[in-house]
Amino acid sequence: MPRAPAPPIRTVATLRPRLFVRVIVGNRRLIGPGRADLLDQLDRTGSISAAARAMRMSYRRAWLHIDDLSHQLGRPIVETAQGGRRGGGAVLTETGRTLLNAYRRMQKRACDAAERDLEALVRLAKRNAKGPTAPRD
Amino acid sequence: MPRAPAPPIRTVATLRPRLFVRVIVGNRRLIGPGRADLLDQLDRTGSISAAARAMRMSYRRAWLHIDDLSHQLGRPIVETAQGGRRGGGAVLTETGRTLLNAYRRMQKRACDAAERDLEALVRLAKRNAKGPTAPRD
Repeated sequence: MPRAPAPPIRTVATLRPRLFVRVIVGNRRLIGPGRADLLDQLDRTGSISAAARAMRMSYRRAWLHIDDLSHQLGRPIVETAQGGRRGGGAVLTETGRTLLNAYRRMQKRACDAAERDLEALVRLAKRNAKGPTAPRD
Repeated sequence: MPRAPAPPIRTVATLRPRLFVRVIVGNRRLIGPGRADLLDQLDRTGSISAAARAMRMSYRRAWLHIDDLSHQLGRPIVETAQGGRRGGGAVLTETGRTLLNAYRRMQKRACDAAERDLEALVRLAKRNAKGPTAPRD
């Protein structure tokens, strides 16, 4: 078999940096990009198991995320229809919807606010890559 | 020995959520709160090993963070004085300083932009905690 080509060099000079936000309560995660994507998938598919599959995680793991969020917010963030957890559908409750919307807004605003600084880092890395004293490789 | 008191319940209703930003390049972390704190400590102490101790990480681990950042930005982010890595002092280079300043600015702006949404989550959790159908505990 032919050898795989070398992976592209992923530095700030060649691949745009992206910013993500994470909300912490005490030392415990409330929500970050992974949980937000899980809730998005749940909202899209109407099913915890379909959302878990889309996220390539086990049903149990998805359920633990949902359970932890529900605890932290004091009320269930997902409502499951009759037929058992795997059988019926699942929808975000008002609490779940508020959380997801708040996260998406914070993420959007943070990205907008960071744009200039991310650009400055890219410019710096490109200058470094061209410079006379680039460190190694 | 007397039993330790039960830990306080850390929910959004009782403990203010905080927002942190993380910058990702491809699937790889560039900088988040941990690395920013490490660079702050280095800047304060002028020493990689003192910074590592303050962060409760090994010298090796601290050095790997610094090395990875230097690779991603195309130039060393820390300059070490003669006397070997542990012997001499260490200071942030212009690249390191630019990175740390950019991170702190992005973090500050993101927090400012998120304030209302974090407050809304706290109000929601407090309402949930008082509500008639709080789930358990």
